[in-house]
Amino acid sequence: MYRDQPSPDELAAMQEAVDRALLAKNQSGKAGIAAAILRGGVKIGRGENEVNLQSDPTKHAEMVALTEAAHALGHSDLSGCVMISTLQPCEMCLAAMRFAGIERVIFGATQDKVAAKYFMFPGLSIADFQAAGKPFEAIGGQFEAELLPLYIDGEE
Amino acid sequence: MYRDQPSPDELAAMQEAVDRALLAKNQSGKAGIAAAILRGGVKIGRGENEVNLQSDPTKHAEMVALTEAAHALGHSDLSGCVMISTLQPCEMCLAAMRFAGIERVIFGATQDKVAAKYFMFPGLSIADFQAAGKPFEAIGGQFEAELLPLYIDGEE
Repeated sequence: MYRDQPSPDELAAMQEAVDRALLAKNQSGKAGIAAAILRGGVKIGRGENEVNLQSDPTKHAEMVALTEAAHALGHSDLSGCVMISTLQPCEMCLAAMRFAGIERVIFGATQDKVAAKYFMFPGLSIADFQAAGKPFEAIGGQFEAELLPLYIDGEE
Repeated sequence: MYRDQPSPDELAAMQEAVDRALLAKNQSGKAGIAAAILRGGVKIGRGENEVNLQSDPTKHAEMVALTEAAHALGHSDLSGCVMISTLQPCEMCLAAMRFAGIERVIFGATQDKVAAKYFMFPGLSIADFQAAGKPFEAIGGQFEAELLPLYIDGEE
């Protein structure tokens, strides 16, 4: 992990996700978390956390983006795509993206710097979600100066 | 884990899920996996695996059932509910149900007896998805005689 750097396309997608996260934070019912899926540098899915908006515990930003990207492609296999997220993906989202065949994730705020509520299993880390025999690159800490104020709040 | 037995309501819901899984297996685009959510013994959500049907990698049977249950309640908190599934829930679904507050799952076929493709991370087991400080009961092996033939196939 952390062996590579984001590409210009990935950095541009991170910046756009940061803008959406900051906007979403001030919108009723939305949490300030945003994600995107890139394929060949092109954005094919976007999502924001809509758990409260949709009354659906599965609607994390990354999950919404996975659904949109798969619909865009017409199939559930997202091999070769890249996940972009403003916050280190939780255990549900990490498992979901790995099942979909995604092997690279670029994210903003890292687990060790944000409120514990964003993760469910203190005994697990992102390293536990590397499937045997398949590569997985995770590059965190992007745009943290803008993003950390969104996620340091420990209140439920 | 495994310290309790299923209640009559839970066994009835398992039987109904088994029937749906066997039916779904023969329907175009559906995988033979079925789930339900109970609250106070009453079914408030159901789901079947619709990954191929919806072209969406997030639509495991348990996720579809979580969404339906949360919509029925009008909020994303499913504390006190019970997850029923014909197959041991994968890592995504385990994380999703725990985030939703579910602390009890009754399931059919267990990971050690089915094809590896149903799970993503060989290094993780259901015990890893017990969050610190919160109870989690998992009772597997229900109706395995009927269910194992659905899940022993190792083909992709």
